[in-house]
Amino acid sequence: MARFEVIAFDADDTLWHNERFYVSAQAQFQELLAQYHRPEWIAERLYEAEMRNLPHFGYGIKAFALSMIETSVELTEGRISGGDIQTIINLSKQMLRAEVELLESVAETIPRLAETYTLMVVTKGDLLDQERKFARSGLADHFQQVEIVSDKDPESYARVLRRHRIAPERFLMVGNSLRSDILPVLTLGASAVYVPYSLTWAHESAEPPPAGQSGYHELAHLGLLPELLEALEVRDRAKPG
Amino acid sequence: MARFEVIAFDADDTLWHNERFYVSAQAQFQELLAQYHRPEWIAERLYEAEMRNLPHFGYGIKAFALSMIETSVELTEGRISGGDIQTIINLSKQMLRAEVELLESVAETIPRLAETYTLMVVTKGDLLDQERKFARSGLADHFQQVEIVSDKDPESYARVLRRHRIAPERFLMVGNSLRSDILPVLTLGASAVYVPYSLTWAHESAEPPPAGQSGYHELAHLGLLPELLEALEVRDRAKPG
Repeated sequence: MARFEVIAFDADDTLWHNERFYVSAQAQFQELLAQYHRPEWIAERLYEAEMRNLPHFGYGIKAFALSMIETSVELTEGRISGGDIQTIINLSKQMLRAEVELLESVAETIPRLAETYTLMVVTKGDLLDQERKFARSGLADHFQQVEIVSDKDPESYARVLRRHRIAPERFLMVGNSLRSDILPVLTLGASAVYVPYSLTWAHESAEPPPAGQSGYHELAHLGLLPELLEALEVRDRAKPG
Repeated sequence: MARFEVIAFDADDTLWHNERFYVSAQAQFQELLAQYHRPEWIAERLYEAEMRNLPHFGYGIKAFALSMIETSVELTEGRISGGDIQTIINLSKQMLRAEVELLESVAETIPRLAETYTLMVVTKGDLLDQERKFARSGLADHFQQVEIVSDKDPESYARVLRRHRIAPERFLMVGNSLRSDILPVLTLGASAVYVPYSLTWAHESAEPPPAGQSGYHELAHLGLLPELLEALEVRDRAKPG
């Protein structure tokens, strides 16, 4: 029997590019307000608005759009033009329409892992947007479950495990956010593989777990995952049973 | 054995009030733009924006806020002030913070039905907002599953039935929207109880099914549901088996 029953993947910046669309939209937003403020100050105020609005709006592109609009009103002391407001809304529609671009080695690795393991996606954000990206990704046939949650804390992972009757020690989560994909999963006694992405939203950053933390692994890209899993299975078989 | 295994409920305007918050926000929005246009024209253009944005933004309060903002820019030819834009965003935050008020007889009926049936919620809209309302409703203990879906078409109900291994003839859906709660469910060969609400968003209206349609029932309020279920169980037992 394989050590893990289910391998779950974060979606944004684990399976496909995402943060780059936020970075690009933010750059256009800074450009739009360039006559009013320095780009660093705009970024700082926008992040502040996002954090303030998180309890109201949650994650995702619509929340980001509303925070950009609110920041534009604040930073222009209400002088922002209607045309510029429409430009911000159009930025969010562009983001929602963006092509899904898979990360390096995802297209080869996922079908290969699906031969041995039950694969699942656990992602947060806008329901419709995430479903749409998943459908466009070309990966849907390899995943047996897609869980879209409003936040990724230990309780939301515990709910997913209960719902699918998975024991924590048989569950492995793979993702690019220490805060959302790795630490809450380790808390439950499950395993987690951290695959850093080149861009990380400040809100998702966290201290890595202490060296030697049980169940924690880090890989440079997803293509290395089958090899890690093989090594873990071999180590398991070598244990006195 | 009871005829139905699972009774699923729509949430907004079936378990608790919802549409009235949209109606009230829209009235404040019309007031805000009163110097520019007649209220009827504002309502018409807003609805048009909502329909145009549905494929991008989906359902829920954040989508509604973005459509109001877009409509305000359009109807003022860009002259809307930053302060008014902020007022619109604040309207949406008020909606997200609104108290959950249960509909008539829901508080008595749901626990009573939970003694006999497995109860489920199937709702669409913003993930975070729906979860929050469910948590605040005081009903959570009586429901075994909450399914928040991006749209309520036959395919989304079929997915829910597959996921929980429910045969269509053992599934009954209760809701206030013919379009979203009743017709797609009847299409699958399941049963549906239509409980009209005093306010219906134009998008959710539809022709009722033809008279005598199998599996279709209509009730004036949720308190009549236990009686209907008893009548259906008795009728079933009377059938030559």
